[in-house]
Amino acid sequence: MAEQSKKWILMVTAQTPTNIAVIKYWGKRDENLILAINDSISVTLDPAHLCTTTTVAVSPSFQQDRMWLNKKEISLDGARYQNCLREIRARANDYEDEKKGIKISKNDWQNLHVHIDSYNNFPTAAGLASSAAGFACLVFSLAKLMNVQEDNGRLSAIARQGSGSACRSLFGGFVKWVMGKEEDGSDSIAVPLVDEKHWDELVIIIAVVSSRQKETSSTSGMRETVVTSALIEHRAKEVVPKRIIQMEEAIKNRDFPTFAQLTCSDSNQFHAVCMDTSPPIFYMNDTSHRQVVLTSGWILSCVVAYTFDAGPNAVLIARNRKAATLMLQRLLFHFPPNSDTDLDSYVIGDKSILKDAGIQDLNDVEALPPPPEIKDKVPAQKCKGEISYFICTRPGRGPVLLPDESQALLCLETGLPK
Amino acid sequence: MAEQSKKWILMVTAQTPTNIAVIKYWGKRDENLILAINDSISVTLDPAHLCTTTTVAVSPSFQQDRMWLNKKEISLDGARYQNCLREIRARANDYEDEKKGIKISKNDWQNLHVHIDSYNNFPTAAGLASSAAGFACLVFSLAKLMNVQEDNGRLSAIARQGSGSACRSLFGGFVKWVMGKEEDGSDSIAVPLVDEKHWDELVIIIAVVSSRQKETSSTSGMRETVVTSALIEHRAKEVVPKRIIQMEEAIKNRDFPTFAQLTCSDSNQFHAVCMDTSPPIFYMNDTSHRQVVLTSGWILSCVVAYTFDAGPNAVLIARNRKAATLMLQRLLFHFPPNSDTDLDSYVIGDKSILKDAGIQDLNDVEALPPPPEIKDKVPAQKCKGEISYFICTRPGRGPVLLPDESQALLCLETGLPK
Repeated sequence: MAEQSKKWILMVTAQTPTNIAVIKYWGKRDENLILAINDSISVTLDPAHLCTTTTVAVSPSFQQDRMWLNKKEISLDGARYQNCLREIRARANDYEDEKKGIKISKNDWQNLHVHIDSYNNFPTAAGLASSAAGFACLVFSLAKLMNVQEDNGRLSAIARQGSGSACRSLFGGFVKWVMGKEEDGSDSIAVPLVDEKHWDELVIIIAVVSSRQKETSSTSGMRETVVTSALIEHRAKEVVPKRIIQMEEAIKNRDFPTFAQLTCSDSNQFHAVCMDTSPPIFYMNDTSHRQVVLTSGWILSCVVAYTFDAGPNAVLIARNRKAATLMLQRLLFHFPPNSDTDLDSYVIGDKSILKDAGIQDLNDVEALPPPPEIKDKVPAQKCKGEISYFICTRPGRGPVLLPDESQALLCLETGLPK
Repeated sequence: MAEQSKKWILMVTAQTPTNIAVIKYWGKRDENLILAINDSISVTLDPAHLCTTTTVAVSPSFQQDRMWLNKKEISLDGARYQNCLREIRARANDYEDEKKGIKISKNDWQNLHVHIDSYNNFPTAAGLASSAAGFACLVFSLAKLMNVQEDNGRLSAIARQGSGSACRSLFGGFVKWVMGKEEDGSDSIAVPLVDEKHWDELVIIIAVVSSRQKETSSTSGMRETVVTSALIEHRAKEVVPKRIIQMEEAIKNRDFPTFAQLTCSDSNQFHAVCMDTSPPIFYMNDTSHRQVVLTSGWILSCVVAYTFDAGPNAVLIARNRKAATLMLQRLLFHFPPNSDTDLDSYVIGDKSILKDAGIQDLNDVEALPPPPEIKDKVPAQKCKGEISYFICTRPGRGPVLLPDESQALLCLETGLPK
């Protein structure tokens, strides 16, 4: 490292999607390396609507590793961050930029400190697996910064050590996390099944539930399930392997009925093993139950699937735009916003579905007729205010670099958040 | 049958308890005979607080079999009623009362019609397994009327054909329903484990939840679970048999910690397999979840167990009166009644526990201090009106005859409801 170049700052900005599992990951066989007890499959969500952007910078002038998350400085002391930093640094390579006079040799990376600034384009508290996009983006951007040559599959094994589901955010489309067999976790990686163009008819609507009880963290929740549930081992060893094969086939063939049946069943079973935990873990609440009951007719007619993660939010996957449009109309009929909410902040993401549904403002929502499946004898149930907002999205691409310096979160002069 | 005695009415009145399973019955291997896929164990509840009273009468003047339930005439056409009537008539014996001039030979019973009047001393809509006490009482009283010589074990196999859990109401204390192996169900019977005096320290408090969504009937629910759940077979074949052995041992030794752990775990697992059903069955709601969270501290300290049947009501089993008194205070603190409810109808059954808790009126409820386990930082959650009422009870005796004619529900002159 040349003395005269003490002032340079080298910087990389990347964007990484979040993902939602359709065959669930629940339970670790190794807590430190984060190795799962079964394979899982997820769909990557369009980063235009849900993603993490991370800028990583390195400079001989930095005194220590520092990180900011959503504008607040956070500690990097945790084992998960340290594991990711250590694994990336161990794979760093020589880097040279003659024009800027930067020359970093392989071994220099161990002594250079990094600044990391990360930002989610969706509320962190919404329970939308921000850690998946977050650790994927941390590892991906650091790897690019440090000239790591490993492909995204190898990088996924590092992101996995930050957050298990993060490994699946290294690819777009549908992704499988292979649990692997090795004790060191080297074969516990994500593999892309199909890219986001393969099944681009799908529309995904996330219903973010308003009132949230204190939830069990997924880390402690899955630990308790593994220790106390009498059903989890049977699920991991007997049920999931068959479902993985069927799900891969369904995705390959764009077979929505099979896809929907497997997705709903596996969401149900994940919540079943949570319930079978001592003490039981309840992630779904009465609002979640209403969403399931509400969508059951469409599920039977194979146009919608649902899946719930470690929280009450419903993730609804519609077969195509037509099904999504009808579904959004019904969702808005049954779950209208509070009167102080404007439509623009109540339905976010891909708003074109709102337009297809003929809804331009809250008056249109109020004027929605009861869905035809509602019998006259039952008064249509309206659950005003139970949903905080809806996010309309679709399957999306994997991580990308944002080469435009204006998109960087850190200032190129100071190395501090802009 | 002597012609001159056309006017006589022969009558029997019996009282039968309800029961609550601590190792759950869920799933049939034979729908018609009602044969279970696993053994189950229940505690019989004190009939002073929850029971069915049934009067059965026979007379040559009756034109047809008729039945009244809670003052309303109902049809006896259903297969379950017909199965019970047929099986009891097939076992009827000669009967003679010289004083009253009644003589019925074994074969006469096939041609004599019966009147049945049945009454529950608790609200039927409360989801408290009224069919268990009901069919047990129907079979027990008919057997006595028709001079059937079979013991309660043999009678339980008949009651089982009315409602599976009814077989366990033929005995007091703790009762096991042995699933049996025979195709005709002859060995699928209830056996008493210990009588109600064996563990009479236990106090049982039932929290009847106010708002109830439309619930899946247990008959169709368990059918759907057997067909669609990927976990139910493992539960029935691998998990329950071990729990049955452990539970019998815990009951025999009055080992409350083991009893509580098994009771809670098996309730959780029953609701887990319901959740694993397609579409999923939700019997517990947010109020049920709150009860579990609320009691979790006492469960850890092994003074309380909970169990939930096919509905949102919590059945809480306290180790002794002291634990029950403290529990009732906390329950009333967190779940006070609506202001238009009086205490006398809010806590029913064994009111002596209220007295022990120092609570005489609603002012005492309002004055209850926050339980010491509540940290200052969390405001104590009060869920006013979520519970409809509490029933305080204890383990109770099996069926009894009520020889006093004044307790009969049918009029001895007309054979019609009084």
